[in-house]
Amino acid sequence: MIKALAFDVFGTVVDWRGAVIREGELVAKEKGLRVDWPKFADAWRAGYHPAMDRVRKGKLPWTHIDQLHRMILNDLLKPFGLGGLSEEEIQHLNRAWHRLTPWPDSVPGLNRLRGRYVLATLSNGNVSLLVDMAKNAGLPWDCVLSAELFGHYKPDPEVYQGAARLLGLPPGELMMVAAHPRDLEAAQRVGLKTAYVPRPLEYGLDGRQETGPHAVFDVTAGDFLDLAVKLGA
Amino acid sequence: MIKALAFDVFGTVVDWRGAVIREGELVAKEKGLRVDWPKFADAWRAGYHPAMDRVRKGKLPWTHIDQLHRMILNDLLKPFGLGGLSEEEIQHLNRAWHRLTPWPDSVPGLNRLRGRYVLATLSNGNVSLLVDMAKNAGLPWDCVLSAELFGHYKPDPEVYQGAARLLGLPPGELMMVAAHPRDLEAAQRVGLKTAYVPRPLEYGLDGRQETGPHAVFDVTAGDFLDLAVKLGA
Repeated sequence: MIKALAFDVFGTVVDWRGAVIREGELVAKEKGLRVDWPKFADAWRAGYHPAMDRVRKGKLPWTHIDQLHRMILNDLLKPFGLGGLSEEEIQHLNRAWHRLTPWPDSVPGLNRLRGRYVLATLSNGNVSLLVDMAKNAGLPWDCVLSAELFGHYKPDPEVYQGAARLLGLPPGELMMVAAHPRDLEAAQRVGLKTAYVPRPLEYGLDGRQETGPHAVFDVTAGDFLDLAVKLGA
Repeated sequence: MIKALAFDVFGTVVDWRGAVIREGELVAKEKGLRVDWPKFADAWRAGYHPAMDRVRKGKLPWTHIDQLHRMILNDLLKPFGLGGLSEEEIQHLNRAWHRLTPWPDSVPGLNRLRGRYVLATLSNGNVSLLVDMAKNAGLPWDCVLSAELFGHYKPDPEVYQGAARLLGLPPGELMMVAAHPRDLEAAQRVGLKTAYVPRPLEYGLDGRQETGPHAVFDVTAGDFLDLAVKLGA
């Protein structure tokens, strides 16, 4: 009997790549720059997992995603011809992740699911990033949960266990929803239910596909509206 | 420049006393009991600050409010003639705090404030209690923050400082809203802005009044609609 759904956010709820490209194009237009923004978005994202892994392995003290994004961004500015941006412009670009926009089915699907389930984020993004994004995009969360609250990044088990604890639920009454099999497999290992919602365009039309699931998930859905149907919402 | 409002909840947003009395009357009607429910509500609440103080002073390890409410309730059952309730009925009564109902101005006032500010709870109630209450009562929080996230109860400074940190704001851009001067004074000591919204009926028509403020607060408002006007929302 599932009571609450915990959503991965980057890639599952929001199209980070499309949004970062669009934010970049706005900068380029204003500043008269020519930048390969798809390549830039992919490079920024490519730094994400290695940066979190440095925290997970104790090579960095707890550092939240805004700070990790900035560390990665600093190394991309010159190679991508952005060396002329002011500190204020760099900060604005770094906060593009606070302004990511949802997949077309995300808001209507969440609004349907919300009638029956408690909806929480369970993201590696920091709380303020998730709050800004939700307010900007109209994501109707009942509760914003983040790796930041637990001092651990997914897929560390503490994150999934912490979410169940804060929601006052046994793990089997909480369902993790994600486009990423590895996230779901880690949730499953500590007893959460799992819903797999592939997002084939996450890395662009020609981008790499996340390798298919190795585990069997409780639900697989084409998008959040399909998920609502399959969960009876 | 205020960016976000952090709300005390019990007494400030919701009428805990009226709601607990009503929940009691439902139990009494079903079980054919006669109980002095106003006295019961006051007794239950009277145990609240001493129980939290035991945690704050290290006499109890971290214990969340559902658990503290249950410890206090256990001692009230027999004196109030509730010794015949089943474990399931006691659990349901204990969760009355998840079903507290707002003051008449709370939902419309919050909906106005939400257009201009990030709205967060900052309550000693545990996360699941606050999430259930918000869903039940239609409280439009952008973010549910609780003492539980910091392992400290208000008025410990860690709670107010933690809220500003998670919201990504310097303390002076976060305003604490409460009906209780002591809560506001503690917020003020760590640099938060403060809004005082007295709730003269919190302890009932003949109940004690919280002693007036000893400090000067940034805003005093008659209710949340008045607060919205005074904060330009």
